[in-house]
Amino acid sequence: VDQLPAIIEQERVTIAVDVMGGDHAPNSCLEGVAIFMRKNQEVFFKLFGPEPKIMELLERYQIKRDRVEIIHTDEFVSSDDQPSAIIRSGRNTSMRLAINAVKDGVADAVVSSGNTGALMAMSKIVLKTIAGIDRPAICTIMPSINGSFAMLDLGANPSCDADNLVQFAIMGDAFARTMLGSPNPSVGILNIGSEIVKGNDTVKAASKILQDSKIVNFYGYIEGDDLVKDVVDVVVTDGFTGNVALKTAEGTARLCREYMSRGFKENLLSKLGYLLAKGGLKKAFDKIDHRYYNGAIFLGLNGIAVKSHGSADAVAFANAIKFAETLVKGKLNQHIIEHICRNL
Amino acid sequence: VDQLPAIIEQERVTIAVDVMGGDHAPNSCLEGVAIFMRKNQEVFFKLFGPEPKIMELLERYQIKRDRVEIIHTDEFVSSDDQPSAIIRSGRNTSMRLAINAVKDGVADAVVSSGNTGALMAMSKIVLKTIAGIDRPAICTIMPSINGSFAMLDLGANPSCDADNLVQFAIMGDAFARTMLGSPNPSVGILNIGSEIVKGNDTVKAASKILQDSKIVNFYGYIEGDDLVKDVVDVVVTDGFTGNVALKTAEGTARLCREYMSRGFKENLLSKLGYLLAKGGLKKAFDKIDHRYYNGAIFLGLNGIAVKSHGSADAVAFANAIKFAETLVKGKLNQHIIEHICRNL
Repeated sequence: VDQLPAIIEQERVTIAVDVMGGDHAPNSCLEGVAIFMRKNQEVFFKLFGPEPKIMELLERYQIKRDRVEIIHTDEFVSSDDQPSAIIRSGRNTSMRLAINAVKDGVADAVVSSGNTGALMAMSKIVLKTIAGIDRPAICTIMPSINGSFAMLDLGANPSCDADNLVQFAIMGDAFARTMLGSPNPSVGILNIGSEIVKGNDTVKAASKILQDSKIVNFYGYIEGDDLVKDVVDVVVTDGFTGNVALKTAEGTARLCREYMSRGFKENLLSKLGYLLAKGGLKKAFDKIDHRYYNGAIFLGLNGIAVKSHGSADAVAFANAIKFAETLVKGKLNQHIIEHICRNL
Repeated sequence: VDQLPAIIEQERVTIAVDVMGGDHAPNSCLEGVAIFMRKNQEVFFKLFGPEPKIMELLERYQIKRDRVEIIHTDEFVSSDDQPSAIIRSGRNTSMRLAINAVKDGVADAVVSSGNTGALMAMSKIVLKTIAGIDRPAICTIMPSINGSFAMLDLGANPSCDADNLVQFAIMGDAFARTMLGSPNPSVGILNIGSEIVKGNDTVKAASKILQDSKIVNFYGYIEGDDLVKDVVDVVVTDGFTGNVALKTAEGTARLCREYMSRGFKENLLSKLGYLLAKGGLKKAFDKIDHRYYNGAIFLGLNGIAVKSHGSADAVAFANAIKFAETLVKGKLNQHIIEHICRNL
């Protein structure tokens, strides 16, 4: 009986929030916490930032005081800060203290909309990489025609060798199990048209290792236009290609929205058509709303560090919290460690 | 006076068509020629393929017999053929003979919807690269929010060094002058988020050369989401990244179309809205119709070789012919050669 409180304690997820990260901080972060709390009664928050401002926003967004702890600091990382410099000078920033909380075991995950490079560099230094992983990778979920898929690396490693890609495959497998609930995720390596020349030496070597070793459920190569086609659960690529692909997809989606909007403004009939179709279109597009897909993890660290988009609003920030919570509850890192141990 | 016929002869553009290339060949190719001819009375065609079939289609699509010449062959390249094998065994294929016509000076350009790898390999062997260019690159035009831009390489060179990228910049500059009519095209190198790590060694080295040498109007780095934002006229990247970006854009556009279609089917109101807005939407989306953007050139060869999409229909094929004609009339290769000479 005396173990019961300990078990309950263990089950409560605690999330450290860098309240001062992102274009709309601290409001978007605190309002995001409030939105998340309305649907979820269990998560506890540690809020890192200036106490007076946080107190004011707790009241404004009607956040219950017993669900949060405030850790005061006036320092924060700005979007212009150089990662290399901020590692030394930023030891008392809200971002750094939030990451420290994960390292110290007083939080299960950290969520920040702040400077990506700084968050990556600080997380890496504080949390360190999981044994067996050479380089952490940025991983997120993207929408496809009938669901979604995980993709990594999205920019942490502009140059990768075959071993890096194989490790990304292992981490991506664990991520998809946790996040997408896939019992046996299929993993593909992003490559270029089979008609032309089948890729570079790195993807060929990584593909051979995955094919031979059966470490993951390896599908083989996939191409850029397969991404949305639900061909695989996990897409592995180097950080250069992955970042370009992610951002090209974002840009193309913007292009389509823009032309759709122009089409509706074309004439009187189309304007009326828009008024009638608006509800249906919103319902359909909500499923691929980028705010819903907010949140990327630095995969491969001893701790869950989640990057929320710099321009995230409150709804998007709430989704990044949800993203972090799912990974904590799904015991993401335990999956990765077990997977590595099995294959060492 | 006796020079007059010669001048007229010189101005008439002759295009060699591989009638047997692509998923819908030969019908799509011949109907494409017919569509093109309705708007353009000057271009002459050399049609490579089986004469009886071509004769039948000339009649079906009402193509004037005096505007075409048929060069009979029963052999053709299939989509499964390996480029390395077809180079040796495919000397009498419609594709090879059409390329030969450009080399022999009896056609100004070749257009084919056939096997990309084979077309690339054969064009390279037959036409050879322009002096000063180490590797040809695949280049096309893509739609942006307020216009369009050129991008290369799209898959010919999965690995590139800095010199390759610099040569792509020179060729892209000439392409944009000819195709987009830009008097002083701005050129950007595709790179990853400035926030994270600014790219790999290759893009850094290429950027430095372009910055220092002023060979082209160099803008600097651009990111994947800048592609559609009309930031630059020419986007330079290696063939691996370029191919992934191009295909990711295609896939994302398909995703948006699919969700738009679902939105319109959502309820009775949205269905009615679709009927009203259809015309306006079509007008807007026609401007970014992939059929309109059909055609990619193997840039850097002694002759214009244009790849049309394998699944091109007649309208798309007509646009690939238009693409080839514009490059011939704009003296693309002369621009490239002059540019290289200036900078040697």
